[in-house]
Amino acid sequence: MLYIVGLGLGDERDITVRGLDAVRSCSKIYMEAYTSLLSLGLDPAALANLEKLYGKEITVADREMVEERVDQVLSEAADTDVAFLVVGDPFGATTHTDLVVRAKKMGVEVKVIHNASVMNAIGVCGLQLYRYGETISIPFFTDEWRPDSFYEKIQNNRQLGLHTLCLLDIRVKEPTWESLARGKKVYEPPRFMTVNTAISQLFEVEEARGGYAYRRETLCIGVARLGSDDQKIVAGPMEKLLDVDFGPPLHCLIIVGETHPLEEEMLEFYMIK
Amino acid sequence: MLYIVGLGLGDERDITVRGLDAVRSCSKIYMEAYTSLLSLGLDPAALANLEKLYGKEITVADREMVEERVDQVLSEAADTDVAFLVVGDPFGATTHTDLVVRAKKMGVEVKVIHNASVMNAIGVCGLQLYRYGETISIPFFTDEWRPDSFYEKIQNNRQLGLHTLCLLDIRVKEPTWESLARGKKVYEPPRFMTVNTAISQLFEVEEARGGYAYRRETLCIGVARLGSDDQKIVAGPMEKLLDVDFGPPLHCLIIVGETHPLEEEMLEFYMIK
Repeated sequence: MLYIVGLGLGDERDITVRGLDAVRSCSKIYMEAYTSLLSLGLDPAALANLEKLYGKEITVADREMVEERVDQVLSEAADTDVAFLVVGDPFGATTHTDLVVRAKKMGVEVKVIHNASVMNAIGVCGLQLYRYGETISIPFFTDEWRPDSFYEKIQNNRQLGLHTLCLLDIRVKEPTWESLARGKKVYEPPRFMTVNTAISQLFEVEEARGGYAYRRETLCIGVARLGSDDQKIVAGPMEKLLDVDFGPPLHCLIIVGETHPLEEEMLEFYMIK
Repeated sequence: MLYIVGLGLGDERDITVRGLDAVRSCSKIYMEAYTSLLSLGLDPAALANLEKLYGKEITVADREMVEERVDQVLSEAADTDVAFLVVGDPFGATTHTDLVVRAKKMGVEVKVIHNASVMNAIGVCGLQLYRYGETISIPFFTDEWRPDSFYEKIQNNRQLGLHTLCLLDIRVKEPTWESLARGKKVYEPPRFMTVNTAISQLFEVEEARGGYAYRRETLCIGVARLGSDDQKIVAGPMEKLLDVDFGPPLHCLIIVGETHPLEEEMLEFYMIK
């Protein structure tokens, strides 16, 4: 059996009781460490806390390992109980559909244990989840690569009066271009996109496109460390959020659409002065 | 302190470890029983299982109680630790924003403990969450009341190639119209909308509107008891799902938009023969 277990958004105590029981019953535990910079997985202390709670050792699986050794993991799961831990929900912002498809094709039974993800926990800022349009991802711009296909999606959402959740890039264990060219991988240091970088990239795209999908005054909400004890939520005009220090990762951004009175009442608590 | 604790989608074991610790530390525990027909709350055995896990008594709060006695709950929370339990996530499909706003205005500290909700767990069917448009709710049609404002939303989503999650009506402790007119409340029996009813209402609306937002052949996914051990997921043309028995509540429906190859691979597992 392959258990795909969501860990939620905070620390080791955000696993569900069902998830904890499953993990404790497994003979092998993997944890994906490539879709989230959360303290989990990258911070040895957080990993130790997980291992202590489970009473088991965890193998941290980076992207390469998952891609290259997935068949090994799945054949282990054919013989015994294996847990694959995922920050957030197994089918949240980053989905693990490919793992499930492979497992099912190999005849390995899969059990999914859900948890909170950014896609629902973002409701905490007060905007109703059913008033969101398509979710977008904003990638780090580089000198050579400045993709802006998210622009039309924001535009569509805003024309419909809907909110836009922007997931911000994280780069964990990415090989540098130079090293790929030379054939021997050297990795970039891990980094995550801040709300500030996201907004300045958005301004750059608006300037280039000129479609008025949003303006400097458009109401936005910056969110950091969603679901953690020290989460930070600040609402205000886009240009004002540009100067707010949101602190450590992860960050995300919401471009607010049309609001209802109850949404506005809640946003008041987070509004920048 | 007011803890608003998400219980997740299955049974008592879907609470998080953090949530369980919080509930066990509270002197008073309320549970909302009006946004979900889940076994939780309406089924005395399920309620007993929760109380056994928590080692505490739970006061089940129906809609009237929450609306009429919220100030009492909040003043309790000003003096002591109170837990308000919510099926799914506190800010999932049904949000409890109003409770948070009231608490904050009274100066009561609020702590939200997230969990899975339909809004993210629906990812299990294989469609990517970021490819969904606006979520809609389909209410029970009555002789006098057949609201169809969801139609334009489906149309917008489909024009953009996006999937539409349809949340289906549940009616728990609703006073009958006749009893309201007579001034003495008599309640309807609780009921929930099946995938089948939702589709036949959708067909009726399409026939009236004629905008081809969807057709009898449009690919849909019916989901029942999402996140439970006996969840049922069936994909197929809308008209074929009309005859599928999805069993006990809760149900929801997805109108599929444009699909990517990985989504299609996953849907194959659920496709009706």
